[in-house]
Amino acid sequence: MNDKCFARRAASLSTSFPAPHFPSELAPGTIPFDSGFAAPQLLPDLASFAVDALTRHREETLQYSATQGQPELRGWIAGLMNEDGCALTAENILVVNGAKHGLELVCRLLLDEGDAIVVTAPTYFTAIPIFRSFGVEFIEIAQDGDGILVEELERVLVSRRAEGLKTPKLIYNVADFHNPTGATMSAQRRRDLIALAETDGIFVVEDTPYRRVRFEGETIPSLKALDASGGVFHVGTFSKLVAPGLRIGWVAAEASLIARLIQLKSDGGSSPLMQRIIYEFGSSPAFPAHIQRVQDEYRRRRDRMVAAVRRNLPGVRLSVPEGGYYVWIELPPQMDGDAFAAQAAAAGVNLIAGSKFFASAGGAFPRNMISPKNHVRLSYSYATPEQIDEGVSRLARIYEPVAA
Amino acid sequence: MNDKCFARRAASLSTSFPAPHFPSELAPGTIPFDSGFAAPQLLPDLASFAVDALTRHREETLQYSATQGQPELRGWIAGLMNEDGCALTAENILVVNGAKHGLELVCRLLLDEGDAIVVTAPTYFTAIPIFRSFGVEFIEIAQDGDGILVEELERVLVSRRAEGLKTPKLIYNVADFHNPTGATMSAQRRRDLIALAETDGIFVVEDTPYRRVRFEGETIPSLKALDASGGVFHVGTFSKLVAPGLRIGWVAAEASLIARLIQLKSDGGSSPLMQRIIYEFGSSPAFPAHIQRVQDEYRRRRDRMVAAVRRNLPGVRLSVPEGGYYVWIELPPQMDGDAFAAQAAAAGVNLIAGSKFFASAGGAFPRNMISPKNHVRLSYSYATPEQIDEGVSRLARIYEPVAA
Repeated sequence: MNDKCFARRAASLSTSFPAPHFPSELAPGTIPFDSGFAAPQLLPDLASFAVDALTRHREETLQYSATQGQPELRGWIAGLMNEDGCALTAENILVVNGAKHGLELVCRLLLDEGDAIVVTAPTYFTAIPIFRSFGVEFIEIAQDGDGILVEELERVLVSRRAEGLKTPKLIYNVADFHNPTGATMSAQRRRDLIALAETDGIFVVEDTPYRRVRFEGETIPSLKALDASGGVFHVGTFSKLVAPGLRIGWVAAEASLIARLIQLKSDGGSSPLMQRIIYEFGSSPAFPAHIQRVQDEYRRRRDRMVAAVRRNLPGVRLSVPEGGYYVWIELPPQMDGDAFAAQAAAAGVNLIAGSKFFASAGGAFPRNMISPKNHVRLSYSYATPEQIDEGVSRLARIYEPVAA
Repeated sequence: MNDKCFARRAASLSTSFPAPHFPSELAPGTIPFDSGFAAPQLLPDLASFAVDALTRHREETLQYSATQGQPELRGWIAGLMNEDGCALTAENILVVNGAKHGLELVCRLLLDEGDAIVVTAPTYFTAIPIFRSFGVEFIEIAQDGDGILVEELERVLVSRRAEGLKTPKLIYNVADFHNPTGATMSAQRRRDLIALAETDGIFVVEDTPYRRVRFEGETIPSLKALDASGGVFHVGTFSKLVAPGLRIGWVAAEASLIARLIQLKSDGGSSPLMQRIIYEFGSSPAFPAHIQRVQDEYRRRRDRMVAAVRRNLPGVRLSVPEGGYYVWIELPPQMDGDAFAAQAAAAGVNLIAGSKFFASAGGAFPRNMISPKNHVRLSYSYATPEQIDEGVSRLARIYEPVAA
């Protein structure tokens, strides 16, 4: 075998993978601030939907299903997105086996080895090895509280053009409650990004698992809602809103691009049982009630964590996310996030060092870039309020001696 | 974008795809001899297993699950394979989203563009575009009633070596109740194939969805059971034995190779609900009873179809498969399978022309090769016994005038 290619493929998905712990792997008493799992208390009761799906709809749920996904579910997803200002139909939706599967299909459609892509620094860590497996060059762009710095991106694009370097093929971003920073792009910044992408002919990939996990503030139009030219791929999932185990997500895009993605989706169709369960649950009164419960509980946990951090970790900076699962902590400049994460683990607190969220961690960082060194991400989704207090207290004990 | 690569990727999965019709797409009265769907009457009642999974195991089935799959299910699958003469543990099993997903992961692990692979002629049509999307060269080897002609393969390998051509990277085969020919490799032929692959350092990919859908005759050791050197990837699925909609399959291989496949499986884990349902159903007394029902019903349909063909289509040749879903028909030499399939469709009978099962259909065929022109595949899994009679009668009406 071609050992070089083999090695690149095999290595690409394993490096930089922080691998949050599964709850079952945790030693008793360990605090799971690394976990993107749902609060167990919020997992919905889907049993009656499953029974209905497996009896009334048995032929549909146990036979093969269409590669694009079930029409009713696709229509319902389009409707959800249209509530957000989009103008989509079922033809614009491809059902996939979770958001990562959707992201990988979009990569397979768009990327060739050696292509450049734009990501934020930091960015969602699980996306990094997926992109890397396609052999891409990362262009990392900094963010502020309003999201990715579009002017900075524009400068980089101009300078790359001057140097004769490739225009990037796509811009990847988590526009709502960014993972890990929690920042939500402002409406203006979104319009600027879309305008720049259209001008330069760059696709935009919007990954937005947390969009409806909003605690306060006004909903801002999705990038897809602002997409006049059809260059935005929107990747959605039910993992963060309903349950991670459903393993059903979607890609929304122009129908002609969806048609090409279908040709690349060689899996024999996504689970028709899960699709039917989600459609029936989503169309029932249980769905809005569930969203309310999710928003209320995670808001409570976010508040608890923000209060605990402010009380216990003087000198750190955090911006309060309006939704999502995570608080991004900037430690004092002399502190090292990797060392802090290791000390935290020794004290029974799992968290993820900021360096794991940088596509080119270890390399050179352009000006304006958030340093990868003195940050950590704390998740409040799986930890109980009591664990949040206890965990941050433990962090305070290892934090104080070095904070000076 | 790189239009050349883009075009290859987009085209690769669409060409040669015969696209059997979904039952919902069929006009009333159409006979579905093209369908690999399960008999609706055989779809098991999984409702109580789903309720149990979503209540007693709610955290497991609605949270993320491990990429490799649930340990209990993996252990149970290893046990199933060990009944067949393998010596596997849960570490040798990777749970995937159906057999095609497993096949694609194996391709991603092993194949580089320009590699050669060995397939039978004819071969399983859905595998062809998956392989083609990796940019491979096909080496097609003929079969007889005992399966792939290993001596012929050996001659081809020797001659390729003499010409300085690449050794193929893998040999792909459906050893049990081959799709489309129905042939099952004899034990000796299997040993010969494994010996040749070991000598030449070629991986073997065994795709065996029908293995337990056996109507008669003795079970023959799987290729994996004969694998002393660890070069066999076994791809399994529950689609043909339990229900196509489950979308859960597995790859069995050396633990070190499974570890590499896990790194390439970027989907966030296969559905934990489906995994739990399959494990509980599979461990219950309902499972052996279900297998018995499946074997009895498909045997009955096979017999019905074989009798109808013999009665109605004089001059065709067919060998009676000992299991699986399909009868492979050799039409008289002057007949064209594509034309016959088109005439059949016009008469309300969907079937698949033999030419669809040849990786290089349209190209040159080596000596000894089954002609792609005068064959068709008839499926008896989804058609009722009455539809089988009616469908073959309709075929007789379009067949007789040309058979001469």
